[in-house]
Amino acid sequence: MDIVILGSGNVATQLGKTLADTGYNISQIWSRKLANAKVLAELIDTDYTDRLDALNRKADLYIISVVDDAISDLLRQLTCLDNPLEGMVVHTSGSTPIEIFQKAFDNYGVFYPFQTFSKSKLVEFGKIPILVEASDKPQLDLLKNLAASISDDVRLASSAQRKSLHIAGVFACNYTNYLYSIAQQLLEENNLDFDLIRPLIKETADKVQLHAPKDVQTGPAIRKDLSILSDHMKFLEDKRKWQEIYKLLSDQLIALATKK
Amino acid sequence: MDIVILGSGNVATQLGKTLADTGYNISQIWSRKLANAKVLAELIDTDYTDRLDALNRKADLYIISVVDDAISDLLRQLTCLDNPLEGMVVHTSGSTPIEIFQKAFDNYGVFYPFQTFSKSKLVEFGKIPILVEASDKPQLDLLKNLAASISDDVRLASSAQRKSLHIAGVFACNYTNYLYSIAQQLLEENNLDFDLIRPLIKETADKVQLHAPKDVQTGPAIRKDLSILSDHMKFLEDKRKWQEIYKLLSDQLIALATKK
Repeated sequence: MDIVILGSGNVATQLGKTLADTGYNISQIWSRKLANAKVLAELIDTDYTDRLDALNRKADLYIISVVDDAISDLLRQLTCLDNPLEGMVVHTSGSTPIEIFQKAFDNYGVFYPFQTFSKSKLVEFGKIPILVEASDKPQLDLLKNLAASISDDVRLASSAQRKSLHIAGVFACNYTNYLYSIAQQLLEENNLDFDLIRPLIKETADKVQLHAPKDVQTGPAIRKDLSILSDHMKFLEDKRKWQEIYKLLSDQLIALATKK
Repeated sequence: MDIVILGSGNVATQLGKTLADTGYNISQIWSRKLANAKVLAELIDTDYTDRLDALNRKADLYIISVVDDAISDLLRQLTCLDNPLEGMVVHTSGSTPIEIFQKAFDNYGVFYPFQTFSKSKLVEFGKIPILVEASDKPQLDLLKNLAASISDDVRLASSAQRKSLHIAGVFACNYTNYLYSIAQQLLEENNLDFDLIRPLIKETADKVQLHAPKDVQTGPAIRKDLSILSDHMKFLEDKRKWQEIYKLLSDQLIALATKK
């Protein structure tokens, strides 16, 4: 299968590398910034361009992996090309519905690997859920097979389900990581090392691999330990942003504890 | 060393079990609720009571592991006993300063194992940081030795440092776990399994074992992907509590991204 990747961000990089390593022919990388296209193209030893009119028109599959905000504009430009693309077109976004392709292409779909990707840390795809959706049965089969060749966990999901999963991921990953960074700054300001809290972060994530989060909720808020909570609020008095988060989350946990 | 444990919660249970397994003589468990004292006492095969006047007066060390709100009242009752305690008295709290002992006892300290404990999941103490503080050098040495016999990571920390660490833990563990539980509910309401997000949770925690959280922050907010953010806010419209969290955290991340 001949694949073109449009994008050079974290998902494009990790997915492109994995597909190339699995034996697929990634024939071209396109990115709005030529330098970025080059970095990924060199990683997997292929061609690159920043010009849409130079796109390989004969690929079987075009994987669009750009920020959500840029997808619809990119699709519009693709449909305006002199020689239209012949292959299937997919995006890798959690929150962009499949309908975005409807008027632009005949064969299309969504290929959403659900994980947090950064360029610096290579990720094993084997256990990463991949959610697929497509315009028709043959395209769906193509995506299912592609997904199954790099992951053990391939699922069919509607655009609404995919969006709910994306939002769940924002809470459980993006916002969680932000809480980690608040913890780090708090420690550093008190001359303590972030290493101190790494085992706790790991244990917190490990615990919910086997248990439901609500069954292992701990801390002063769920115990309604009000004197500690007000003590902590006071400690954060000159950190208004963190204090706001502390208050909102503790209030909600207290409400939960009270309902029980 | 003869140790009495006052308390029967998560920390008392895990610490008591670990000390007993390491060979210390846990001579008695006290808890306000006899049934709870009994459960822990049976786990480590020792005596138990719910009466403070029945406390073993000859122990070398009394470990107080009750909710923070209850510590000062318990200390008052202990000082009013007919035959005062002879050994050293410590608590295991992150946020209660060492000064709480000052007028009540001569030999005292703090023994704070920094981890999230639940009764249902046994924890390996070996890698858990234990923060100690004591009334004087001999007591500090006693606590350091005790800590070193169950953990490789023993540190001296002031009450202010300990409190900052506790607050950091509330963010990185308690509030993180609450975000996990929001993710779970979101998925279940959309007929998706929590299993889908477990690899992401694990990867998010694994990533910061080697990197600084701020260097691996991902998601629509840090990318300032405003259309996705407003789309997610809309999706959460009938979940006002979660929407509030979503908005507060995305606003702060956008502000961070803008400052850069």
